[in-house]
Amino acid sequence: MTIEAKDGQTREPRIRLGMVGGGAGAFIGAVHRMAARLDDQFELVAGALSSTPEKAIVSGRDLGLDPARTYGSYKEMAIREARLKDGIEAVSIVTPNHVHYEAAKEFLKRGIHVICDKPLTSNLADAKKLKKLADESDTLFILTHNYTGYPMVRQAREMVANGELGDIRIVQAEYPQDWLTEAVEETGAKQAVWRTDPAQSGAGGSTGDIGTHAYNLASFVTGLELDSLAADLDSFVAGRRLDDNAHVMLRFKARGSEKAAKGMLWCSQVAPGHENGLKLRVYGTKGGIEWVQADPNYLWFTPFGEQKRLITRNGAGSGSAAGRVSRVPSGHPEGYLEAFATIYTEAAHAINAGKKGVAVDKAVIYPTVDDGVKGVAFVEACVASSKKNGAWVKV
Amino acid sequence: MTIEAKDGQTREPRIRLGMVGGGAGAFIGAVHRMAARLDDQFELVAGALSSTPEKAIVSGRDLGLDPARTYGSYKEMAIREARLKDGIEAVSIVTPNHVHYEAAKEFLKRGIHVICDKPLTSNLADAKKLKKLADESDTLFILTHNYTGYPMVRQAREMVANGELGDIRIVQAEYPQDWLTEAVEETGAKQAVWRTDPAQSGAGGSTGDIGTHAYNLASFVTGLELDSLAADLDSFVAGRRLDDNAHVMLRFKARGSEKAAKGMLWCSQVAPGHENGLKLRVYGTKGGIEWVQADPNYLWFTPFGEQKRLITRNGAGSGSAAGRVSRVPSGHPEGYLEAFATIYTEAAHAINAGKKGVAVDKAVIYPTVDDGVKGVAFVEACVASSKKNGAWVKV
Amino acid sequence: MTIEAKDGQTREPRIRLGMVGGGAGAFIGAVHRMAARLDDQFELVAGALSSTPEKAIVSGRDLGLDPARTYGSYKEMAIREARLKDGIEAVSIVTPNHVHYEAAKEFLKRGIHVICDKPLTSNLADAKKLKKLADESDTLFILTHNYTGYPMVRQAREMVANGELGDIRIVQAEYPQDWLTEAVEETGAKQAVWRTDPAQSGAGGSTGDIGTHAYNLASFVTGLELDSLAADLDSFVAGRRLDDNAHVMLRFKARGSEKAAKGMLWCSQVAPGHENGLKLRVYGTKGGIEWVQADPNYLWFTPFGEQKRLITRNGAGSGSAAGRVSRVPSGHPEGYLEAFATIYTEAAHAINAGKKGVAVDKAVIYPTVDDGVKGVAFVEACVASSKKNGAWVKV
Amino acid sequence: MTIEAKDGQTREPRIRLGMVGGGAGAFIGAVHRMAARLDDQFELVAGALSSTPEKAIVSGRDLGLDPARTYGSYKEMAIREARLKDGIEAVSIVTPNHVHYEAAKEFLKRGIHVICDKPLTSNLADAKKLKKLADESDTLFILTHNYTGYPMVRQAREMVANGELGDIRIVQAEYPQDWLTEAVEETGAKQAVWRTDPAQSGAGGSTGDIGTHAYNLASFVTGLELDSLAADLDSFVAGRRLDDNAHVMLRFKARGSEKAAKGMLWCSQVAPGHENGLKLRVYGTKGGIEWVQADPNYLWFTPFGEQKRLITRNGAGSGSAAGRVSRVPSGHPEGYLEAFATIYTEAAHAINAGKKGVAVDKAVIYPTVDDGVKGVAFVEACVASSKKNGAWVKV
Repeated sequence: MTIEAKDGQTREPRIRLGMVGGGAGAFIGAVHRMAARLDDQFELVAGALSSTPEKAIVSGRDLGLDPARTYGSYKEMAIREARLKDGIEAVSIVTPNHVHYEAAKEFLKRGIHVICDKPLTSNLADAKKLKKLADESDTLFILTHNYTGYPMVRQAREMVANGELGDIRIVQAEYPQDWLTEAVEETGAKQAVWRTDPAQSGAGGSTGDIGTHAYNLASFVTGLELDSLAADLDSFVAGRRLDDNAHVMLRFKARGSEKAAKGMLWCSQVAPGHENGLKLRVYGTKGGIEWVQADPNYLWFTPFGEQKRLITRNGAGSGSAAGRVSRVPSGHPEGYLEAFATIYTEAAHAINAGKKGVAVDKAVIYPTVDDGVKGVAFVEACVASSKKNGAWVKV
Repeated sequence: MTIEAKDGQTREPRIRLGMVGGGAGAFIGAVHRMAARLDDQFELVAGALSSTPEKAIVSGRDLGLDPARTYGSYKEMAIREARLKDGIEAVSIVTPNHVHYEAAKEFLKRGIHVICDKPLTSNLADAKKLKKLADESDTLFILTHNYTGYPMVRQAREMVANGELGDIRIVQAEYPQDWLTEAVEETGAKQAVWRTDPAQSGAGGSTGDIGTHAYNLASFVTGLELDSLAADLDSFVAGRRLDDNAHVMLRFKARGSEKAAKGMLWCSQVAPGHENGLKLRVYGTKGGIEWVQADPNYLWFTPFGEQKRLITRNGAGSGSAAGRVSRVPSGHPEGYLEAFATIYTEAAHAINAGKKGVAVDKAVIYPTVDDGVKGVAFVEACVASSKKNGAWVKV
Repeated sequence: MTIEAKDGQTREPRIRLGMVGGGAGAFIGAVHRMAARLDDQFELVAGALSSTPEKAIVSGRDLGLDPARTYGSYKEMAIREARLKDGIEAVSIVTPNHVHYEAAKEFLKRGIHVICDKPLTSNLADAKKLKKLADESDTLFILTHNYTGYPMVRQAREMVANGELGDIRIVQAEYPQDWLTEAVEETGAKQAVWRTDPAQSGAGGSTGDIGTHAYNLASFVTGLELDSLAADLDSFVAGRRLDDNAHVMLRFKARGSEKAAKGMLWCSQVAPGHENGLKLRVYGTKGGIEWVQADPNYLWFTPFGEQKRLITRNGAGSGSAAGRVSRVPSGHPEGYLEAFATIYTEAAHAINAGKKGVAVDKAVIYPTVDDGVKGVAFVEACVASSKKNGAWVKV
Repeated sequence: MTIEAKDGQTREPRIRLGMVGGGAGAFIGAVHRMAARLDDQFELVAGALSSTPEKAIVSGRDLGLDPARTYGSYKEMAIREARLKDGIEAVSIVTPNHVHYEAAKEFLKRGIHVICDKPLTSNLADAKKLKKLADESDTLFILTHNYTGYPMVRQAREMVANGELGDIRIVQAEYPQDWLTEAVEETGAKQAVWRTDPAQSGAGGSTGDIGTHAYNLASFVTGLELDSLAADLDSFVAGRRLDDNAHVMLRFKARGSEKAAKGMLWCSQVAPGHENGLKLRVYGTKGGIEWVQADPNYLWFTPFGEQKRLITRNGAGSGSAAGRVSRVPSGHPEGYLEAFATIYTEAAHAINAGKKGVAVDKAVIYPTVDDGVKGVAFVEACVASSKKNGAWVKV
């Protein structure tokens, strides 16, 4: 039994980081900053924190940035930082979705690694162009599908890969929330406004904002490729322009001689009682697992015909994939910020390996631009299927 | 705070009961007998307990029945008991599905009340004929959708009816099991054999056996009428002839000016870790509820924007609909048999009212032949939709 | 995987039962009646249901008893029933505590088996006299420490006996309630009045009413003998004459070369939020278990250094001791009445064996007058220790 | 409904921090560093990370410290840093208990703020001397009773202070672990060795290591002062020199006209299945609360006679005391590191206020040397009581 804690998994010099978006009043920017800081692999040194110049300046000052490196636009930042001797090595893009593509492009083409929030872009065409750019460059593209950083999600993935569930048959994924139960976007609430605006979010509402998380999580854990889906989308709140609830049936591609797996996915922003109710359940020929984001240090494992087991992070039966990304011993819970930080630290592993010209450790995992393209394709397929009255649509 | 218990809600003479099916090795027959006994409203006095005459005799003797009232066939029982001065007043039909129709007919037409297991019949045509017969007679037809007897299910229904959830938007129903994860029907296990046999079960496997329960529960609690469904059915176990997993999307009929509610339903018999995982979640404009059959004395109530509440059976905030069908104070759990017994006791209320020529108390609730027709229609719609690649099918 | 249910474990003729107490407005009488009925081993044929003659008559009529066998006093019932050819074979005593001794005596000495509610008597002297009487007769004495009838309690006991926990070190037992948080006895509430009255309850309040249950449960599961205790009792509600909260430290006798186990016991009737919060946790050198009465179909088992396991009644890993007293398959919960019924059915096994002159099956378990004496001794030791400022008192 | 996150609650320049202990192989040092970093209020610039000089050097290098500020002893660090213009402003002491006193003294007397792990010292005499030193200086002394940093612990405290529970009657505190179930100290496991060594830990084993946490938490939430205790301590593992299990009864001082509250406290390191099972339950005349460290984002609130409520961090009904120390919205869990970080950030608030010569905001809360003295007094009282066979001992 080990009682140990670890702060950061590399001892390299801190990576110089810039940020696009994330000024005062934002949500995810502060999360990215804490995540970047926790394992001490990054140092925030520059920012284009708001599209409103004044706000950008104030926000930079609040964060203690050098005023000379507080920029009025991401383009300006990309150009200047690329020229600086100690310019940023990586950039975090934490704006609304519609900005991702243009912003990422500016950094990618200048060799600055991109850490980008999801969904990748607001439409599939942009997503594919971005993938092309990323594929053609040596620059890393890390998409913050942060839930993949939770240790017990890693544990689940390892167990599936090890065959502990047998052939996968059924996937049940859901991500209900309740914060859009009423028309809060009409009150001007910043987070609600852009997330319900097609121009800023893209074609999907709940599907883009949280459905992509559920879909990514299911793919990450099972390793299955989605073949097609049938979706029934609604905007329950009068006047809302994007979906706030989606029911989706999933068909995965068969693997080898296995029967193809099936699934259901539910995402909602109008389900009272749910804050961030992301949950994944997977059932195979040999057993099942269940993971709930709000209680992330637990993983239920139910081998068929045996006693149900509750695996705890770093506890007995918790394996190396989970242990590698844990910081504290079992029984002391880690949370959302730690999982998010793991994405950053995985990115740091990859960036540092690149700097040293060595291969990235195989244990290092982070979501990439490919996951981003799949996510946007998922959203567009949901919307397309729903428009065709729930017909099956290939993804 | 009351500390009281009650055993039985009427003090009428016991109703004379016969049973069709339920001999040695059966499952649900013993359940019906315990349910009939708990509140002391019924007395089992006759039986056609098996289609195998010898087994019928032995089973009758085991149950202490008068040998003269242990019959070789339900028809013989119906004919003779109808002529006896103290013949049975009601009969429980607890056979495999395909027998329900013919058996029920014999008793209905002789004025013997029928308490019948679900699904109503093995096909919709039979179901409709049975409904016609029942509608045309004065005889009661009670379908044992037993989960509607749980006090907190009654509580949920009362809360929806009282508007505590506002307009209903989303219904999530599921009933996963794991006992058919492997091909146990090939080992000769009696329960598995008939439940996977189209000749005995009808067109639906998991949809008929447990999907109907989930659907009935959703309807019972919400009061919503199903409009149409889109289903994706599988038989994951090689060689299995009926579905063992079903993913269903639901569209309910709009009520008044409300936006029509949507839903998802999952039933499975191949989901390792689930024994009888019936669960219902309902979300409206004002709040949500969640009920889990395995923990039936609790009901989560999540009014939007307020603290989450856990209502316990007969505890604070548990209303009269639940209290009426509770036997013991809060904190001492009631279970499956008690809920089942409530269906019998509700039937007794109705039968006794009929005997006295008075109206049945409005608080009395039990599932009827109408619910049975809806259940069989649900199964057939699932099968039809799945055959049409998940197209929407009207129910 | 078996899907079976069973209703009653013997097929003997029903045992003729009388009842003392349990008239209108009582709590536990109705519970006893349902428990006696569930497995169909008993038939209630006589009663002295109230010490108020008129109430006794009305209550008998309500229960459908023959008026000739509705008695005005237990003594009258004992005398007359003992003479009847078809007189009662057993009697249930469900009065307040202070009546137990005198009532039981009348039946014991006439060879009528006694099924008596707990605590055994209102003082230790009576308890010992009753034990002497019972020991000297051939009549059975069954004490309804009903929680020992729960299948997962049987499972826990079997696991401890099998050494799955290793040597027992620590026992944590608790039984909090909240129904006496305020001075409800002053409102005349029947259950509160007698339970807070030393003349009717004895020296202990919460200790007698529920502390004895927690203590009995701990003893039943672990098989440990209590050596001594140190107690701190309170009557938090002003004017209350008996304890409504007790903190107790326990020292058990060492077994063989084992280090003596230690324990804590908390019982309370003034702990808001607890209905019947009986919980037992036991820890040994090899593992731990946890059982919660409100969720009785589960047993946590935590072998040291292994994954935590949740055993479900009749599910995988649930053994024969639990299966023997289960009625329905796993996943369909059994509750309080079923556990109570098991005590009755165990009594029936013993009574029937006696009638046939054969030995009682070794698997049959029920609490006896010895458990009753221990319970009253526990209460008096608590009171004595508390009076001596929490000094250790031998039990 | 707000969707916002915040990283750090002050925007002052980072406080220069040193660390005593916490070199390679340590547990709590890494935790302190992550905690100091999360909200970006501190910068680690110096360290005396090990009493073994070589290890101190290597550890400093691993952490990227300036070699000139990597010291071989805390005394050396205190002397030199006090003279530096940019010397450390605060120091974290994360050594085994017996070093705390001497180390803290060196920094306190040089005006360097001390952030010290618990228990304060290895004996009460040292604790009192340290308190005297701290009281006489202007230097801050922060004790990392980290569980007081959990938002829902703050919520609980606020609710008690607001009278939502009424007069407090009962306190149930427990902290079971299982990592010392076997004699791991004999395998040389660093954490086990010093924690079971009286010379390094002091008179208490589990009482000092975790019992102090449970006691501190109970005091923090209720605001009650402990009057006396009765304890029964054991060393269940053969050869172990300090207690590994303790049962304690508590008597608190009466407040005003309230009846004095009572409590129980259990701490154990030999309870298989428990990782860090810290739990607190408090019951008053008007309601109860329950908080469990492993699931820290929830607080059960059970107002007497009302529905049970589950309050979630930053969710509905979660107040300003919790919100002030939360970083992310409800539904995204915060964990142990965040709670620990809150202690650091509260310290930063106080240090920064001091630097500016303004009063510390009244909302700022952190454990002090006074809490430390109480903790050590608690341990010594437990040991004294147990030696006197559980007699009541004043604290």
